[in-house]
Amino acid sequence: LPAPFRIALVGFGNVGRRFAELLPGPYASAFRALGLRPVITGIATGRHGMAIDPRGLPLGRALRIVRAGRSLDALNEAAPLRDALAFVRAVPADVLVEISPLDPQSGQPAVRHVRAALERGMHVVTANKGPVAFSLASLKRLAKRRGVGFRHEGAVMDGMPVFNLVERCLPGTRVTGFRGVLNATTTRILSRMEEGASFARALREAQVAGIAEVDPGNDIDGWDAAVKACALANALMGADVRPPDVRRRGIRGVRPEHSAAARRAGARIRLVARGRRVAGRLTVSVLPERLRAGDLLATDGADGILELETDLMGEIGIWEGRGGVDQTAYALLSDLVAVAAPVAKALTRRSAKR
Amino acid sequence: LPAPFRIALVGFGNVGRRFAELLPGPYASAFRALGLRPVITGIATGRHGMAIDPRGLPLGRALRIVRAGRSLDALNEAAPLRDALAFVRAVPADVLVEISPLDPQSGQPAVRHVRAALERGMHVVTANKGPVAFSLASLKRLAKRRGVGFRHEGAVMDGMPVFNLVERCLPGTRVTGFRGVLNATTTRILSRMEEGASFARALREAQVAGIAEVDPGNDIDGWDAAVKACALANALMGADVRPPDVRRRGIRGVRPEHSAAARRAGARIRLVARGRRVAGRLTVSVLPERLRAGDLLATDGADGILELETDLMGEIGIWEGRGGVDQTAYALLSDLVAVAAPVAKALTRRSAKR
Repeated sequence: LPAPFRIALVGFGNVGRRFAELLPGPYASAFRALGLRPVITGIATGRHGMAIDPRGLPLGRALRIVRAGRSLDALNEAAPLRDALAFVRAVPADVLVEISPLDPQSGQPAVRHVRAALERGMHVVTANKGPVAFSLASLKRLAKRRGVGFRHEGAVMDGMPVFNLVERCLPGTRVTGFRGVLNATTTRILSRMEEGASFARALREAQVAGIAEVDPGNDIDGWDAAVKACALANALMGADVRPPDVRRRGIRGVRPEHSAAARRAGARIRLVARGRRVAGRLTVSVLPERLRAGDLLATDGADGILELETDLMGEIGIWEGRGGVDQTAYALLSDLVAVAAPVAKALTRRSAKR
Repeated sequence: LPAPFRIALVGFGNVGRRFAELLPGPYASAFRALGLRPVITGIATGRHGMAIDPRGLPLGRALRIVRAGRSLDALNEAAPLRDALAFVRAVPADVLVEISPLDPQSGQPAVRHVRAALERGMHVVTANKGPVAFSLASLKRLAKRRGVGFRHEGAVMDGMPVFNLVERCLPGTRVTGFRGVLNATTTRILSRMEEGASFARALREAQVAGIAEVDPGNDIDGWDAAVKACALANALMGADVRPPDVRRRGIRGVRPEHSAAARRAGARIRLVARGRRVAGRLTVSVLPERLRAGDLLATDGADGILELETDLMGEIGIWEGRGGVDQTAYALLSDLVAVAAPVAKALTRRSAKR
């Protein structure tokens, strides 16, 4: 029988639920290849209670309970828990998956949860941008001290390998700059404005379609892109910048006639995040830019596009077609496999000694 | 003192020479991080002789000799060698780097060199498409049996991580198809035709610029793209196809008026390589296609663009800005680091036991 690999989830919204749905099926083979059997030993939510079961929670029942708007407390086999932080400190798990709702201006409560888990010697996997944008250096130091992994592939461009690409596939290479279209909501609004829609109308349509949030400032004022840009600068360029340091202007000032005129010339207006080192100093910006026709960042059909400038490889780029819940859930799988590999190896060594 | 990591080169053209230039400088840190010191113990060329020195050849002198059109035989410290295959069988090295000129219709002599090295229990790194397009499955089996690595990142899109991306960053994912613009020479010729140049003139310009070869059939008849498409299908989709199996049409039939008309509509004609599974059967094609405006494959500024269709991540893409000698040399570094890592680990274990 494969050994259990115990996963605890903080946050059980769309991404967490999709992850739980896929775990027993499409995701199982990746763990089986390591000789491990994933079990979810705890789930903490904001509005649907929390539950711990050291033998593994019944996922189907947990999904039905939250979908019906009831509380997971009914499944709890441990002592009652005060809050998510108490949950992180108590749950018996090899890894914490942090996907709680994020305050983009503080990175909390994700940073607190990540730190508490690392301090306990648990691996951490997160799709939250906050910890990477606000506290990467200190969290990496802490993880190293405890000998555990801290992985955050889902923080930017969902499951598209960004951080893992640089870490695993570009040995000896320095990232010297980047340029990206990282916020899909603004791209969709700007595309509609190219067709003549007013900003207000394009925004309303995106809200009705469930693409933009009811409070859209996070996207259209460039906060989301700024947090992602900091995550990239910190993780790929060794920077130590925070979202308030970003030179930031959103798309409220873009007028339909600008968008349409650009489009007629084959060009496009997009919200572009940039990081670059100028005279040794790193600057990060998020600004609407007019991109010329044929620019790789101006193409259709991608929810995220990123170009990296490197010393040994010149310019390279990646894009993600559709970015959604499936892709973010995949980022969790990809990172979990990475932290599970040393766990599997340790088990193999132990059983070889017996 | 770091332990030596012994590299033998078969082929010492532009890529091999660039690799040798960069090895002591920009590339050294990647090996140092593993506790290894790269030494080139042998170089075999087609027209500049060959040399073996178990203590490491003097790279600066070797470069000066070939640049002056003289023979490397002067540096040989071993018994005289009959040919490159004899060199592969004799050279004392941990890894063979295969970068000899390729016959795209047979994959030789690269396949013979790779096989001979693997049979000796040497790791193999190649930037040659031939072995991957013609003999991947059998070479992988042989490498596995001998417990060594066979890596070929440079076979497609130079140093851009293609094979490594899928292998290392997309765990549990199946590649179900691909679409790519993989031959830079045809892209440049088609771009000039968009501006009104005739095919003959665009080709001549590319030849004068050193982009197209004197015998241009390999590029413009789609052979190069077909070999790359097979390499992708075999390595990423588990196929077993060979270049003659590819449905292939080059760009000789494209007329400037087609290109210009497409361009006026924002569209573009490009030589597109495709692989897909239809009803369980894999088909690979290389055909000129009219790509709509905004298609990611139709953008400027990339020498190679590849879109992968996957089960868990949907469509994802990668591009390489400029692809040249530097980028192909980097593919060798990237693969060498991968095969060196287990060598370094074994050394560490051995010295820990002492």
